[in-house]
Amino acid sequence: MDITLDRLHDLARGAAFLGTGGGGDPYIGRLMLQQQLSGGGRVRLIDPSELDDDALVVPVANMGAPTVLVERFPNGPSAVQAVRKMERLLGRKVDALMPIEAGGVNCTLPLVVGSLMNLPVVDADGMGRAFPELQMTTFSIYGVAGSPVVIHDEHGNDVVVSAVDDKTSEWLARVVCMRMGGKAEITLYPMSGRDAKTKSVPYTVSLALQIGGVLGAARSTKSDPFAALDGFFRAARPPRCFKVLFDGKVTDLWRETTRGFAVGHLVLGTLDGTGTPMDIDFQNEYLSARIGELYVATTPDLICILDRETAEPITTEGLRYGQRVKVVGVGVPPVMRTPEALAVWGPRVFGVERDYIPIEQMGD
Amino acid sequence: MDITLDRLHDLARGAAFLGTGGGGDPYIGRLMLQQQLSGGGRVRLIDPSELDDDALVVPVANMGAPTVLVERFPNGPSAVQAVRKMERLLGRKVDALMPIEAGGVNCTLPLVVGSLMNLPVVDADGMGRAFPELQMTTFSIYGVAGSPVVIHDEHGNDVVVSAVDDKTSEWLARVVCMRMGGKAEITLYPMSGRDAKTKSVPYTVSLALQIGGVLGAARSTKSDPFAALDGFFRAARPPRCFKVLFDGKVTDLWRETTRGFAVGHLVLGTLDGTGTPMDIDFQNEYLSARIGELYVATTPDLICILDRETAEPITTEGLRYGQRVKVVGVGVPPVMRTPEALAVWGPRVFGVERDYIPIEQMGD
Repeated sequence: MDITLDRLHDLARGAAFLGTGGGGDPYIGRLMLQQQLSGGGRVRLIDPSELDDDALVVPVANMGAPTVLVERFPNGPSAVQAVRKMERLLGRKVDALMPIEAGGVNCTLPLVVGSLMNLPVVDADGMGRAFPELQMTTFSIYGVAGSPVVIHDEHGNDVVVSAVDDKTSEWLARVVCMRMGGKAEITLYPMSGRDAKTKSVPYTVSLALQIGGVLGAARSTKSDPFAALDGFFRAARPPRCFKVLFDGKVTDLWRETTRGFAVGHLVLGTLDGTGTPMDIDFQNEYLSARIGELYVATTPDLICILDRETAEPITTEGLRYGQRVKVVGVGVPPVMRTPEALAVWGPRVFGVERDYIPIEQMGD
Repeated sequence: MDITLDRLHDLARGAAFLGTGGGGDPYIGRLMLQQQLSGGGRVRLIDPSELDDDALVVPVANMGAPTVLVERFPNGPSAVQAVRKMERLLGRKVDALMPIEAGGVNCTLPLVVGSLMNLPVVDADGMGRAFPELQMTTFSIYGVAGSPVVIHDEHGNDVVVSAVDDKTSEWLARVVCMRMGGKAEITLYPMSGRDAKTKSVPYTVSLALQIGGVLGAARSTKSDPFAALDGFFRAARPPRCFKVLFDGKVTDLWRETTRGFAVGHLVLGTLDGTGTPMDIDFQNEYLSARIGELYVATTPDLICILDRETAEPITTEGLRYGQRVKVVGVGVPPVMRTPEALAVWGPRVFGVERDYIPIEQMGD
């Protein structure tokens, strides 16, 4: 399937939804892709099943805090150089690219790079959403090594991390990224076509396109976007839980860029000021939502903050005091909920002192 | 020349002298080398002129703040792995090792690694002393690229930095070292035998042996070690300026481990409390010494703090309130005083707002 100019708004909006607050401003990702397509570039998205088992597949991404990405955009040529470096390290050509995460600019960046390098992009990713750290992937969880991690900046500097485990790769790569100015282009988890088919979350780029399409259609027909999302996830095969978790406005916001992340805490109140407020913690992405002491959603389930009229996704760096929003939660596929997966991105990893409960069993 | 067990005290003491406060506790370097030699290892030091022009020479070193080195020793096997990685990156075997700096444990570590790998060690270095940062080498000043920089830790993690200039290599490698626990083994500046002969400071390992020998002989004959040092440097070919800059005791000391360095400031008073105190700034190494507003020595000339009785060198992490010391200054060879060299390690680089004046023309 070719990604064409007319689908870019849908793609960017859907990627922002799956970004659960992280992954950067979707506007930037859309502009990059638009520039590439307008210049005659072609963007090919392929079904994972099209991959040869022994193909070389490489995820490519932008690394950095979303608050930095607002000022320093992902750099396509730097990402191309990162992939070329990976090819030199492995001694062979890359056959296909893949997003490491389906959320935010990291959904669209591989498409830009694929177009620049004339490589197809696999319709799958390693997170099924966005997560803040490099080891938080199905690739790592199910046995693909993250190393070598190539970190490249737009000045031509590169750093290659070969670590004994992927959490150490994250630990070492993160500071390099910070010293490169808070953002860098990376490639990592080089893998076979076989692994790309069996150790990824499949069809997440097309999922972004579909979610963006649902939101775009609701907007153009002036119908309720939240009802449209509910219908979409209900009709998915298999169906996915969709809940509106809160309806209100931003009443308090604390955010800082630290250790290479946008970390913070958000309080939402009801519009009429009655009832219990909602608290949301984030590290690039929204991680947990609770009303009073009662958690209503945690990772890995999606927590998205949407404009309460248009359902436009709001990223963590786009949060403003007084914004009127709805918080929605969406269940994730079983591959993201295994004990091995929850050990890597379940609530306890992010400091929530309780075990994971699937969103469909929580709260009400 | 073989370095034998009976020379280890001299070598460690002389290396500590050339370390000008940095490079770590000489006791550690001596123990490492002693263990290696006692186990039957052989340590070969070769004259730079013995190198083939097209030999591959690689400096190997420990990177980190001396305050960390007190608790975490340099790791020989990790350094060997770093050299092996460099060989894989370059696609050829290393022919000889070299110290990057002649001061402290980085004078002895290449000898340990050379013994482990059965490689000779070149009697030369890139600093003619110790300096705190990776770009501060005659190699870099006279055109050898620092990249690739291999940074290796004792857990088996490695990081390879390929930067557009050596100051950027330092900037990126330093944080990696910090995240590896504040110390790591490194190899960098891979160079030809021709470059090793023409872009190094020659005969600095044997200089350390000689200085250590002078101090050891003065101690065993109970003669004045400062007079012995004065005689030694006066008789050197060419002669080098030697001055006792201050005689007194430590009256104030501020030191912190920050940004990967041991940074601090030291005040010395006279023994009878009269006269103007001396101020010394350091970043791993002693960088500048002044009496009141009058500078009496700055980089790249050596500033060494020695016990006022035994002339035992005192490293920055070994400084204690009340220590009775003499501060001595030693001139450095012309290759370290060119405009290109002073741009990299002259006083202004370390925040002293005045141009370099050779120590023989300063003060009195």
